Amino acid sequence: MFSPLIEDLIRALRCLPGVGPKSAQRMAMYLLEKDRDAAGLLAATLELAVQKIGRCGLCRTLTEEDVCSLCNNSRRDEKSLCVVETPADVLAIEQAGNYHGRYFVLHGHLSPIDGVGPADLGIDLLERRLADEPVGELIIATNPTVEGEATAQFIAERARACGVAVSRIAHGVPIGGELEYIDGGTLAHAFNSRTAFYTGG
Amino acid sequence: MFSPLIEDLIRALRCLPGVGPKSAQRMAMYLLEKDRDAAGLLAATLELAVQKIGRCGLCRTLTEEDVCSLCNNSRRDEKSLCVVETPADVLAIEQAGNYHGRYFVLHGHLSPIDGVGPADLGIDLLERRLADEPVGELIIATNPTVEGEATAQFIAERARACGVAVSRIAHGVPIGGELEYIDGGTLAHAFNSRTAFYTGG
Ligand SMILES: [Zn+2]
Ligand SMILES: [Zn+2]
Repeated sequence: MFSPLIEDLIRALRCLPGVGPKSAQRMAMYLLEKDRDAAGLLAATLELAVQKIGRCGLCRTLTEEDVCSLCNNSRRDEKSLCVVETPADVLAIEQAGNYHGRYFVLHGHLSPIDGVGPADLGIDLLERRLADEPVGELIIATNPTVEGEATAQFIAERARACGVAVSRIAHGVPIGGELEYIDGGTLAHAFNSRTAFYTGG
Repeated sequence: MFSPLIEDLIRALRCLPGVGPKSAQRMAMYLLEKDRDAAGLLAATLELAVQKIGRCGLCRTLTEEDVCSLCNNSRRDEKSLCVVETPADVLAIEQAGNYHGRYFVLHGHLSPIDGVGPADLGIDLLERRLADEPVGELIIATNPTVEGEATAQFIAERARACGVAVSRIAHGVPIGGELEYIDGGTLAHAFNSRTAFYTGG
């Protein structure tokens, strides 16, 4: 019912996550009716981002530089290396604010069904870093899913072969969470991973 | 925390209606990590749309053509002209499916506070059409808001001066709506605009 180019725009906007046909139509109308400057800026920024943004040569996070600002920051502790699944995970850990080491971004997890193997996750690059750099501890912060755990296991074994200490971030009841509302799997894990409070005797 | 270009992209995505900082970040990560082809297509389509899409010379709806497909459709009834506030309103009426006339899109409503006057709504073009074309009835379908009603009044007077019959679409309780959940203003309007069912006597 709209003109072909407007229909193209609505269809293109639907590629955005969480955007259905109604939202896409509302977005198209808003951009064309109310804010063409913003639409033009979005088009230009998106094109530039697609062209320029690649991966950091050291940690594989998304960046338009050869090496990202985190890897370039000499004040970060080079003895700690934290493995995460996505660039958004780096942001989440940085916002928590108590980790001051370096990162390595897998861009996913091992998934034989989807054909994602160690090479896709840059495990060779990770091993080279463990061999070349003075890494004292590899902290694995993949997600506590079946695939994330399998990936953590795989990387832990590779790192052990390199003679590097390996740890896994803790999983359990979130701080401030109420037991009543925590799912059974998390609660079971919290019991199995309990730490001594007072050893008795 | 992300690179400057990624931050630019997140900021540009926030111009979309209903997209806050978290959604914008999720969209940027999705486009860069999972679907660069879609991102490139969105950028190109958006740029083309901003460049090419203007207004139909007859009805003022958004289109990349000089005259839109609806105005060009000789099977539409040229005796009925329906005035709406937005191109999305045209779509809504077309989807309802029982109107077969032509349209005129105001792109807004009269709003002296925002400096929106008759010239911004193309009222001069509307009057020219009423003078030149065999329009038998002007149907005003502006929104039932204070501004929409004032705009309807204004246009009705202009059309009357042109000697054209003018009507306003009905407002009241939506079909299938339950009285219990209808707001008081709509209900009051529905009572005032009641139609005779059986005249007695
Ligand atoms: Zn880096
Ligand atoms: Zn038209």
